[in-house]
Amino acid sequence: MSDMTHLFEKIAAGEIASHEVYSNDFVYAFLDINPLSRGHTIVIPRNRYETLADLPDDVGAALGEALPGIARAVVRATGATAYNILQNNGREAGQVVPHVHFHIIPRFEDGSGLQVRWDAGELKDGEHLSEQIRNAF
Amino acid sequence: MSDMTHLFEKIAAGEIASHEVYSNDFVYAFLDINPLSRGHTIVIPRNRYETLADLPDDVGAALGEALPGIARAVVRATGATAYNILQNNGREAGQVVPHVHFHIIPRFEDGSGLQVRWDAGELKDGEHLSEQIRNAF
Repeated sequence: MSDMTHLFEKIAAGEIASHEVYSNDFVYAFLDINPLSRGHTIVIPRNRYETLADLPDDVGAALGEALPGIARAVVRATGATAYNILQNNGREAGQVVPHVHFHIIPRFEDGSGLQVRWDAGELKDGEHLSEQIRNAF
Repeated sequence: MSDMTHLFEKIAAGEIASHEVYSNDFVYAFLDINPLSRGHTIVIPRNRYETLADLPDDVGAALGEALPGIARAVVRATGATAYNILQNNGREAGQVVPHVHFHIIPRFEDGSGLQVRWDAGELKDGEHLSEQIRNAF
């Protein structure tokens, strides 16, 4: 497969065709060509940042502001009653294109949608760990 | 299990104890007591909106602005090199507490983290479907 580093920039710029769902100055949204379910949509910042942690505040805000409206439109158009938002950072977490993207994945009664296994444990050192994270800001 | 409708409001207000990770006027973040991996964090708006689609623009923006910094701190404190952001809407999509929340789930070499099955198909009616969604705004 060819290098996908700049794929989403080219899609946002219209250099590579896509099925546009939403667009503004900062954000572009389009249908995933390999959907997990009907209406599976990808939401990206027009400029490339590799992971969520790399996003400047204003780009994070623009994405967070756009997501609810896009989700509403996807739900209305598809009739889905439930949906997942998934955003993967790093190859080990399933990120394929190194350009921050949020998946909007509708769920339907036929079971199509995101399949997650939830093997939860128990929090044991919450006081120490939360302090470590607060100190990491 | 008792009614969890207002659980996260009470946590954000300090009426129910939690391991705080981050806090500002709009957003509160704390450790999940049933983590999928070390550092599993929940990020919520202080006020309750049931799903992402219910979020007003400014609350969506506040969440989107806060997420990158929280992710950076979680990664720094835990040493994770990859992580997933997951946000579930509707019971069929795995939502348990009816108050919008983003999971930050670090992934580690021992395999702990979010487990996803990715059964993707092929987009067939992209032109028609994307038009339907654009018309649903």
